[in-house]
Amino acid sequence: MSRHERVWKDLTRVRDQAPLVHNITNFVVMNSTANALLAVGASPIMAHAPEEMRDLIGIANALVLNIGTLSRPWIESMHLAGKAAGERGVPVILDPVGAGASRLRTETSISLLDSVRPAVIRGNGSEILALATASSGGTKGVDSLHRSDQVTDVARELALNRDCIVVVSGATDIVTDGDRIVRVAGGDPLMLRVTGLGCTASALVGAFAAVSDSTFDASVSGMAVMSVAGSMAAEKAEGPGTLQLHLYDALHNMGRDDLERRIKID
Amino acid sequence: MSRHERVWKDLTRVRDQAPLVHNITNFVVMNSTANALLAVGASPIMAHAPEEMRDLIGIANALVLNIGTLSRPWIESMHLAGKAAGERGVPVILDPVGAGASRLRTETSISLLDSVRPAVIRGNGSEILALATASSGGTKGVDSLHRSDQVTDVARELALNRDCIVVVSGATDIVTDGDRIVRVAGGDPLMLRVTGLGCTASALVGAFAAVSDSTFDASVSGMAVMSVAGSMAAEKAEGPGTLQLHLYDALHNMGRDDLERRIKID
Amino acid sequence: MSRHERVWKDLTRVRDQAPLVHNITNFVVMNSTANALLAVGASPIMAHAPEEMRDLIGIANALVLNIGTLSRPWIESMHLAGKAAGERGVPVILDPVGAGASRLRTETSISLLDSVRPAVIRGNGSEILALATASSGGTKGVDSLHRSDQVTDVARELALNRDCIVVVSGATDIVTDGDRIVRVAGGDPLMLRVTGLGCTASALVGAFAAVSDSTFDASVSGMAVMSVAGSMAAEKAEGPGTLQLHLYDALHNMGRDDLERRIKID
Repeated sequence: MSRHERVWKDLTRVRDQAPLVHNITNFVVMNSTANALLAVGASPIMAHAPEEMRDLIGIANALVLNIGTLSRPWIESMHLAGKAAGERGVPVILDPVGAGASRLRTETSISLLDSVRPAVIRGNGSEILALATASSGGTKGVDSLHRSDQVTDVARELALNRDCIVVVSGATDIVTDGDRIVRVAGGDPLMLRVTGLGCTASALVGAFAAVSDSTFDASVSGMAVMSVAGSMAAEKAEGPGTLQLHLYDALHNMGRDDLERRIKID
Repeated sequence: MSRHERVWKDLTRVRDQAPLVHNITNFVVMNSTANALLAVGASPIMAHAPEEMRDLIGIANALVLNIGTLSRPWIESMHLAGKAAGERGVPVILDPVGAGASRLRTETSISLLDSVRPAVIRGNGSEILALATASSGGTKGVDSLHRSDQVTDVARELALNRDCIVVVSGATDIVTDGDRIVRVAGGDPLMLRVTGLGCTASALVGAFAAVSDSTFDASVSGMAVMSVAGSMAAEKAEGPGTLQLHLYDALHNMGRDDLERRIKID
Repeated sequence: MSRHERVWKDLTRVRDQAPLVHNITNFVVMNSTANALLAVGASPIMAHAPEEMRDLIGIANALVLNIGTLSRPWIESMHLAGKAAGERGVPVILDPVGAGASRLRTETSISLLDSVRPAVIRGNGSEILALATASSGGTKGVDSLHRSDQVTDVARELALNRDCIVVVSGATDIVTDGDRIVRVAGGDPLMLRVTGLGCTASALVGAFAAVSDSTFDASVSGMAVMSVAGSMAAEKAEGPGTLQLHLYDALHNMGRDDLERRIKID
């Protein structure tokens, strides 16, 4: 089965099974994340009260932890939900938004890596570098960020170190389990002018992880579908506002042809 | 006066009086709820600090309590605001999002029913069933959910039991005070792929309850206007993203003809 | 250099320098504020945890404090961030949403004026009046609100009293430092039917203050760009839903001609 066929098969599964994706995410993207999950065919839950974490993880098929607008009580809920997910075999996706920009974010990410052991980490180059650096005791230089082969090396090492899939998003997305590397090229530069599309990608990876046997394949599929949707939306958009809207439409309407035509996976 | 004429009259009142609707609602839908209220002609307030509940209820014409992203401090504010609303005769709408999915949600809903005594409860079939079950000591079976005549019975009983209007939204919405039953058929299936449209419906019911002498009529009018807007928007939309946008436009532009043509009320 | 040329120069600077604007803002507008900042060419941060305020202010070029959905912990973070901003010379914009509607809002605004000493206050007429009244011991009458020359006087006095720029938004925006007065006329009445466009204007003023030598000019430029974007968006919109989307597109696409043609500044 080709990569493109696999993505299509995974997308069909999401649409058929409508997995329940539980998000403890940031205030900025709650609405857009929920809309993206609905558009792709999944069902979102957004909740953070510690009192209901066990009940909700009990019905969820994936858990997405996103540290974009942290505070102490939410960090506790993330740990609680992550623990419950671990006990039930629910895959956890970590989106370390802004890791490296504040100690709170870097330390929270590391403590979630330690205790929750997510199946997938998805971030941009600078977030992944910050995690890898903090994870290995702070010895890596920040300048390595700008050399894409070094980003790949760092992602690989983090994946091995943490025994998980690492996804680095960018003009070309990188997905690695420390051994295999898949690159997804597509999308559109205008996507950088819409808030939270990285967070959306993480949530989509959650939806795909919920229905797939392989977290690695799910990560590739989630990023591929996001890229294709971005490319479809950019074609209709006149700017970042209309792009966001058309992106939901694209997630909902995406056909097999769109997948074949609009991205390169290797 | 026909039902359609009454809805039109109520909509005209909302537009003329611009009632202030205070929402203690979930993070996911705050923006979309505020936009829907503005589009229909009402004025939204979104606030949750216990310190300002009395001041704000003092200027509000309706109060909408929505439990979508609960936490302890917000539950306290809901009780505080609900109490103040009761003392001032401000109608309260309860949207028990996710009741039945966690004990926290079910129990919070029941405790709000007990102490705040809302004028209207609006939920989907499964939420209303969860409330009815918990409200009557847990004897109802969950399977009754799928038979629409049983949903009607359950809604009716809950309305009688709690002395309020119960609205069950679905392909056909049901509005009952325990005695009368009105059904509103319209909308579009694509509405299910946009987050928070149920929450929007509850907020609209709040806007209509603020200007109407009859909470029953207000509930019918709010659901009718939502259905018509959904149907107008679906006609222009290419997917869930564009649907949401056109829905605000539709709430703003809706004319008498749209009401007549696009829904069935009986 | 004409006013229009100065606005264009400032807009070019925002696009070239992509200033980091840190927002402690309300839940309703976080998404739309972030999108507007990205669309105009700036970079948003949204964060409120006290633990990371110093780290984040350390990389921010402006700080926007918006009291739209207050609570005690957020008020503390606003003070903390404001203090750090003061120490580092980062300009602070205060948006006193709903000042006058509750004592909590009025008192929080005054206490932020006292301790943070913002460079700019941006509000609507009624908010500015509430602040001016509370700031001067409560002697002003509310009826002065409806007479635009009195609003100007009140804004002027508040600016002198607090040694800052005061921006009053309305059909014609007023910008004053207590001495100079600039009026920006443009925009579109439909903007009143979209939630949070005032908050967006405050965030844009933040982006412009981050790159400009003069907070006064930055305030004029921010309001001018907002007005032009609203006017461009209204031309394409069929209602408030589509207006919001086209507004982001307009912020992104705005050219020199749009500035010249669509607003009057004097």
